[in-house]
Amino acid sequence: MFREKIKVLDCTIRDGGLMNKHDFDLRFVRQVYKALSDAGIDYMEIGYKNSKRLFSPKEYGKWKFCDDCEIRKVTEGIESRTKISVMVDVDRVDVEDILPKEESPVDMIRVATYVKDVDKAIYLVNHFADKGYETTVNIMAISRALDNELTECLEQLEKESKAGIIYIVDSFGSLYQETTEFLVKKAKEILKSKEVGMHAHNNQQLAFGNTIEAIIHNANYVDGSIFGLGRAAGNCPTELILGFLKNPKYDIRPILDVISKEFIPLQKKIEWGYFIPYAITGILDEHPRTAIALRESDKKENYREYYESLIGEVED
Amino acid sequence: MFREKIKVLDCTIRDGGLMNKHDFDLRFVRQVYKALSDAGIDYMEIGYKNSKRLFSPKEYGKWKFCDDCEIRKVTEGIESRTKISVMVDVDRVDVEDILPKEESPVDMIRVATYVKDVDKAIYLVNHFADKGYETTVNIMAISRALDNELTECLEQLEKESKAGIIYIVDSFGSLYQETTEFLVKKAKEILKSKEVGMHAHNNQQLAFGNTIEAIIHNANYVDGSIFGLGRAAGNCPTELILGFLKNPKYDIRPILDVISKEFIPLQKKIEWGYFIPYAITGILDEHPRTAIALRESDKKENYREYYESLIGEVED
Repeated sequence: MFREKIKVLDCTIRDGGLMNKHDFDLRFVRQVYKALSDAGIDYMEIGYKNSKRLFSPKEYGKWKFCDDCEIRKVTEGIESRTKISVMVDVDRVDVEDILPKEESPVDMIRVATYVKDVDKAIYLVNHFADKGYETTVNIMAISRALDNELTECLEQLEKESKAGIIYIVDSFGSLYQETTEFLVKKAKEILKSKEVGMHAHNNQQLAFGNTIEAIIHNANYVDGSIFGLGRAAGNCPTELILGFLKNPKYDIRPILDVISKEFIPLQKKIEWGYFIPYAITGILDEHPRTAIALRESDKKENYREYYESLIGEVED
Repeated sequence: MFREKIKVLDCTIRDGGLMNKHDFDLRFVRQVYKALSDAGIDYMEIGYKNSKRLFSPKEYGKWKFCDDCEIRKVTEGIESRTKISVMVDVDRVDVEDILPKEESPVDMIRVATYVKDVDKAIYLVNHFADKGYETTVNIMAISRALDNELTECLEQLEKESKAGIIYIVDSFGSLYQETTEFLVKKAKEILKSKEVGMHAHNNQQLAFGNTIEAIIHNANYVDGSIFGLGRAAGNCPTELILGFLKNPKYDIRPILDVISKEFIPLQKKIEWGYFIPYAITGILDEHPRTAIALRESDKKENYREYYESLIGEVED
């Protein structure tokens, strides 16, 4: 697949940070930045801009807050054309923390929202766009959205927001190709002035397949993470995206290097990837939080009991 | 997805046997058979019918030969509607070893062939069909087939073979959805009197995605293996297929149980799944044998060097 407009955003540090309270050390983050830069990746998402009034810097690492001075320590001295992205969650950011683009090392701000919070997301994203940033709105848990509400959400984003890109986020790793096709086509149809992006989770080993599906249906922004690092089952592996895209600007080799040197050792400290409890939450379209808790308990391989506990929760 | 005609064949013991010289012990194989039976899986493929003149029973385990008496030791005393399948490779079987269906515990014989050996495969499969077995021809390494030769192969299979099902086999895990769609549509168009099947490898984490793609385009036979066990990157996980198919005859829970009890411990002895060297051979459409050798060497994490050794092999 070669389509020049396709851009790859690597969210290794941001989504991976959900597994270690955003506490990657500077050396590791610089290694990732260097690898992504050498590989020609378009964007690196480094963390969240969360309010220090809401979250304590004593409890969380630097990449929960992404102070500009910390980002500069990552980028300084490394030759790069890779842009820096940060994520903000609705209701968790102090907008006054965000300086005008000219004064910041950040290039892109992505606003993560549920369908129900789209008005707040539009307020935020327009604020950031006015400050000069590239902007996206990422619609989380889209597998749970009712179709009429999603339609309204997309129509509002098209009419009222200054975001350049709207992402479909398969938070629970529950989408199949047909659903991905349906959602991307729907988004493309409504969002006539914007690009569509895809952020997939790998609970059912479909993150890469769904990312390809989104590309086939003209999504031009795709998220990956190195060796799939990310919350629970993780994300679409960046190295596989590079193998698929034929754009000669990308080079897979620096990614292979950093996996060898940094991610294989990291696997001994943090657990992510294909584990049955994450597959189960994907199949059942559930948030992985109970699966993460299970993996941290002494019942971590009790799959049947866990499955039955989920399907037994009758909602009426 | 609910389509009653879809049948699931689990090839855990057969394809997984490629990782341990087909030497699973009887207890393990019975546990797998029981789990598949309780889960309602349609077929269990237990191994190869290879000639003992070509391969020594001293060097290989039982499931390289699948003597009928050994199969009976697996099935005896376990209530089941799961049929037994064995695979034969062109040029590696003694046809006189295969008794008439009525005298054998085997229900299905699958003939694995390259496009170039299709005449031999047709001879074999017709022989087995005449002996009363359900039969398939599995076209290996289909990603390497020239289109005109594949057309001729499929036309011959339609006209000359008695096989009920023709499988597309993504031996190198190199197919993407577009290629899978192309191949399944092509096969369906030519094979008017037969069913089409899909056997995927998981080098690029696309085994499940490509299996779904094949189902979308009307393949009705799909291969899986428990927890993805199979050569190198392994296969499409049976548990994910069951999560996807809505046929109430299937029950995922016995599969979850046997993963907990048998496959988690097995992971400490045999390595399979997503490893970068297997991803590389998938991306490059190569047989995984050099990647398997790398993983057994002291350079097992030297991904860049391995990648460069493969792309450096200029063919002209």
